[in-house]
Amino acid sequence: MFSADTYKQRRAELKKRVGSGLVLLLGNDLVGMNYADNEYPFRQDSTFIYYFGLTNPGLNAIIDIDNDREIIFGDELTIDDIVWTGVLPTLHEQAHDVGVEKTLPTADLKKMLDEAKAKGHKIHYIPYYRAEHRVKLFNLLGIKPGQDEPSVDLIRAVVDMRNHKTAEEIVEIEKACDVTADMHMQAMRIARPGMTEYEVMAEVQKVAQAAGMALSFPIICTTQGQTLHQHKYLHTLNPGDMLLLDAGAETAGGYAGDMSSTICVDKKFTKRQKDVYDIQVASHLAAVDALKPGVPFEDVYNLSCEVICQGMKDLGIMKGDPKEAVPAGAHAMFMPCGLGHMMGLDVHDMENLGEVWVGYNGRPKSTQFGRKSLRLARPLEPGFVLTIEPGIYFIPELIDLWGKDNKFGEFINYNELNKWRDWTGVRNEEDYLITADGARRLGKKIPLTTEEVEALR
Amino acid sequence: MFSADTYKQRRAELKKRVGSGLVLLLGNDLVGMNYADNEYPFRQDSTFIYYFGLTNPGLNAIIDIDNDREIIFGDELTIDDIVWTGVLPTLHEQAHDVGVEKTLPTADLKKMLDEAKAKGHKIHYIPYYRAEHRVKLFNLLGIKPGQDEPSVDLIRAVVDMRNHKTAEEIVEIEKACDVTADMHMQAMRIARPGMTEYEVMAEVQKVAQAAGMALSFPIICTTQGQTLHQHKYLHTLNPGDMLLLDAGAETAGGYAGDMSSTICVDKKFTKRQKDVYDIQVASHLAAVDALKPGVPFEDVYNLSCEVICQGMKDLGIMKGDPKEAVPAGAHAMFMPCGLGHMMGLDVHDMENLGEVWVGYNGRPKSTQFGRKSLRLARPLEPGFVLTIEPGIYFIPELIDLWGKDNKFGEFINYNELNKWRDWTGVRNEEDYLITADGARRLGKKIPLTTEEVEALR
Repeated sequence: MFSADTYKQRRAELKKRVGSGLVLLLGNDLVGMNYADNEYPFRQDSTFIYYFGLTNPGLNAIIDIDNDREIIFGDELTIDDIVWTGVLPTLHEQAHDVGVEKTLPTADLKKMLDEAKAKGHKIHYIPYYRAEHRVKLFNLLGIKPGQDEPSVDLIRAVVDMRNHKTAEEIVEIEKACDVTADMHMQAMRIARPGMTEYEVMAEVQKVAQAAGMALSFPIICTTQGQTLHQHKYLHTLNPGDMLLLDAGAETAGGYAGDMSSTICVDKKFTKRQKDVYDIQVASHLAAVDALKPGVPFEDVYNLSCEVICQGMKDLGIMKGDPKEAVPAGAHAMFMPCGLGHMMGLDVHDMENLGEVWVGYNGRPKSTQFGRKSLRLARPLEPGFVLTIEPGIYFIPELIDLWGKDNKFGEFINYNELNKWRDWTGVRNEEDYLITADGARRLGKKIPLTTEEVEALR
Repeated sequence: MFSADTYKQRRAELKKRVGSGLVLLLGNDLVGMNYADNEYPFRQDSTFIYYFGLTNPGLNAIIDIDNDREIIFGDELTIDDIVWTGVLPTLHEQAHDVGVEKTLPTADLKKMLDEAKAKGHKIHYIPYYRAEHRVKLFNLLGIKPGQDEPSVDLIRAVVDMRNHKTAEEIVEIEKACDVTADMHMQAMRIARPGMTEYEVMAEVQKVAQAAGMALSFPIICTTQGQTLHQHKYLHTLNPGDMLLLDAGAETAGGYAGDMSSTICVDKKFTKRQKDVYDIQVASHLAAVDALKPGVPFEDVYNLSCEVICQGMKDLGIMKGDPKEAVPAGAHAMFMPCGLGHMMGLDVHDMENLGEVWVGYNGRPKSTQFGRKSLRLARPLEPGFVLTIEPGIYFIPELIDLWGKDNKFGEFINYNELNKWRDWTGVRNEEDYLITADGARRLGKKIPLTTEEVEALR
C-alpha cells in the first residue's frame, strides 16, 4: 500500500477528470470454489485498489463528485469472525490509512445510491467481469445482468491515469518482475527429462509463494507450446522436447510481472529447434529496439511479424514479400496473437475496461485473424509498461484448416510447412517501461537466446 | 472419471428417489480474478461431477424424470478456442464417456426449461453458492437473487447418495489422503526456525501440485494456531513457536483429503507445549476409538470435549464436572468449533446442500457458541467418510470477552487461564471411513503424538 496521499491525489484527479456525478467502485468479494466458505484466494478489483488501496474482501466505495465526499462501505468483524479468521484493523482504521475518513455499513450503500438517483445525479461505474458484480448492480441499481451501461467518461479517466505509471508504481512492478525472473531461472535450473510438467510448474509456483507473492495469472508450463494458453500439466518432459513457460508473480499490492521463456529439455537445442528459435529472438530484439515514445505499437507489431515472415521465407516455409504478407494477415499462421500488452495492477492491464480504450485510445480494433488479438496499438508514451512477446507457433489444426483451401497460397508453402507441423511453439517475453527517450527492461534479465539458455542448462 | 455405468446408475437412482419433475444441475463456469479472461483454476460443481462426471467449465445438464431423458448442454470449440486452449473431445464425445447420448447448445437450455414450466413440470435445483449461479437462475428461470427455493426432495436424495461412499470412491479419496499425508510430512521435514510461513506453505503446495493434484482448500500454515482459519503467511518461524498446518490435496476427479498437524519449530516441544498438546491427543484418540456405526457423532463430539475439559481441569484452568461443563458450553472457550465433518467431493462434503441435511439428517442444529459449528451430529453409518480434528485454542479476544463477565465462572479459572493466553493453538486431524463394525483411517499415517513429531524433527 502506498501512502494516504497517493490515494487522495488519485481520487482528486479522478474527480477533476470525470467532472460530475457519483462514481461507484465495487470491491470484489470472496468466491466459493465448491461451496460458499471454501474460497479461492482473494483478489481485489484493480481499479478499487488503485483509488482506495484496500485489498480485503467485502468493501465498496463511492466518490461523490457532486457533494465532494468519499465513503468506504463495509462491515466490522464479529467475535465469530475473529475466532475463525483473526483480528483485523477496524474498517475506520483501514479507511484512514488510505485517506478516507467516512465509512458506513454495507447496508447503507443502496440507500445512498437511491438518493443520488432520485436527485438526478449520474452514477458512473466501470465495466465489471464477475457474476458477483452483475448481482451487485442488480441489487443496488436495478440493472439486469447484461444490461449494464458503464460510463465512458469514467473509463477514459481511469485508463489514462492507470496507463501512466508513477515512480512508486514502477518500484512495485519491478519487485514483481524480479521474482518473475527467479521463477523462470528456477525452471531452467531444475527441468530435466522424465519430470512432468506438473513438477516443473509446482517448483515455479513455489518460488513466487515463498517470496510472499501470488501468481499474476495461471502458469503455462508445457511441452506443447503451440497451444498459446495451455493450462494443463499432464505431459512428461522427453528428450528432444522444448518446454514453454509463461509465468509471473504479483505483489501483495497487486502489481504484476509477466515473462515467458522456452528451453530445451536436453542440455542443447537441436539444429531444427534453433532454426526457428533464432527467428523468434530476432523478432523480439527488433521489437525491443523500436520501443520509444511516439512510435505506434502497431508499427512495432508489424515489424516484429515481418521479421518472422522473413525468417520463415529463409527456411522455405513462406514466400513473397514480408511487407505484403503481414498486412494481408498471412503471418498469423505462425503468430495468431499480439506482440504484447499493457501491464500494471493487471497482467493484461485493465482488460476489463476495454482494450479499445487501454490499447487503442478509442480507435476500433482490427477484425483480422491474428491482428485482432493485438491488445496494444496506440503510440507509446513515457510511463507505459508493456510486454514484448512475439511467438512462433506451428498449430496443426490451423495448418489443416487453412491448408485445405490453400489460404494465403501466395505467401505460404504448405508442402514445406507440413514438414514442420510437429515443431510446437516458442515464445520469449520481457517487460519494458517506456522512458523519455526509449525503453528500459524491468526486472532481472532471463536468458533469451539459445546460447543463453544452454549456458544455464 | 469413473465408467459410464457409474454415472448412469447414479442418475437412475436419483430419478427413482426424486420421483417426478425435471432436475436442473448447473455446472460451474470460469471466474475471472481481476478481468474475465484471467481465471481462477477451474473447479466444477461437485454435484454435477457426481452425476455427470465432466470437469470442464461451461456445462449444464438436466435429468428430465417425467420424460425419462438426460441432456448435457454446452458449446463446441471454435478455431479461436483451439489456438488458445488446444483441442478437446467434442461435447458429444465427452457426454458419451459418462453415458449421456443427447447434447444440445447452451442456448437451448432456457427453451427446454420454459417448455417444462409451461407444461407444469416441477423444476428441481439444489442450493447454489456462487453469484454466477444466481445470474443463471435469473436468466434461466426468472428467479431474482436471494429468492431461490431449492428442492428439498432433491437435496435429500443427493445427500443420501453422496453421504454413502462406494468402494471406487474410497479408492479416490485414499489417493487424495496419501498425497495429503505427504504434504504434512514434507512440512515436518523442512520447517526450520527463520523460515517464513510463506516458505513452508509453498513447499506444502508444491507436493500436491507435483503429484498432479489441486488443494482441496486454501492451506492454513501458521504459528498463530489460535486463529482457526488463518490464511495469511506473514510470520517468521521462531524458536519456541509451534506451527499448525491444515492442508489437503484434491484428485483431478475432485475427491478431497484433509489433515492437520501441529509441530514444534524446535527439535523438541517444551514442557508447557506438551502439557496441552497431550490433552489434544487424548481427545483425538478417544474420538477415534468411539467411531462405529450407530453412534451419533454428537456423542463423539461430547466425549472429545469432555476429555479436553478434564485435561484443562488437571492443569487448573478449568474446574467442576466435565460432564456438566460440556452441555453448558464452557468447553467452547478452548474448542469453539466442531470435531469433524463429512468429506468426499467437497472437503466439507456438500456444505452447500445444508449441514442440517448432510450432518443432522434434518434435525435442527444447536445455536450454542461452539456447538453450532459442529457440522456432523447424526448417527454414523457404514460408508460415511469424516474427519476427526479436535483442537485446543487459547484465543485472547475470547478470553477477554468472556472473562470480563466471568462467563462460565463455575467451570473456568480465568486467573489461571490468563497465564496461558499466549499458548496459541493445537489441532491434529485424520480422515476415517466408517466400516461395518468400526472405522478405518484413510491414507498414510502422519505423526500425531509429540513423540512421533519429535522423531521426525
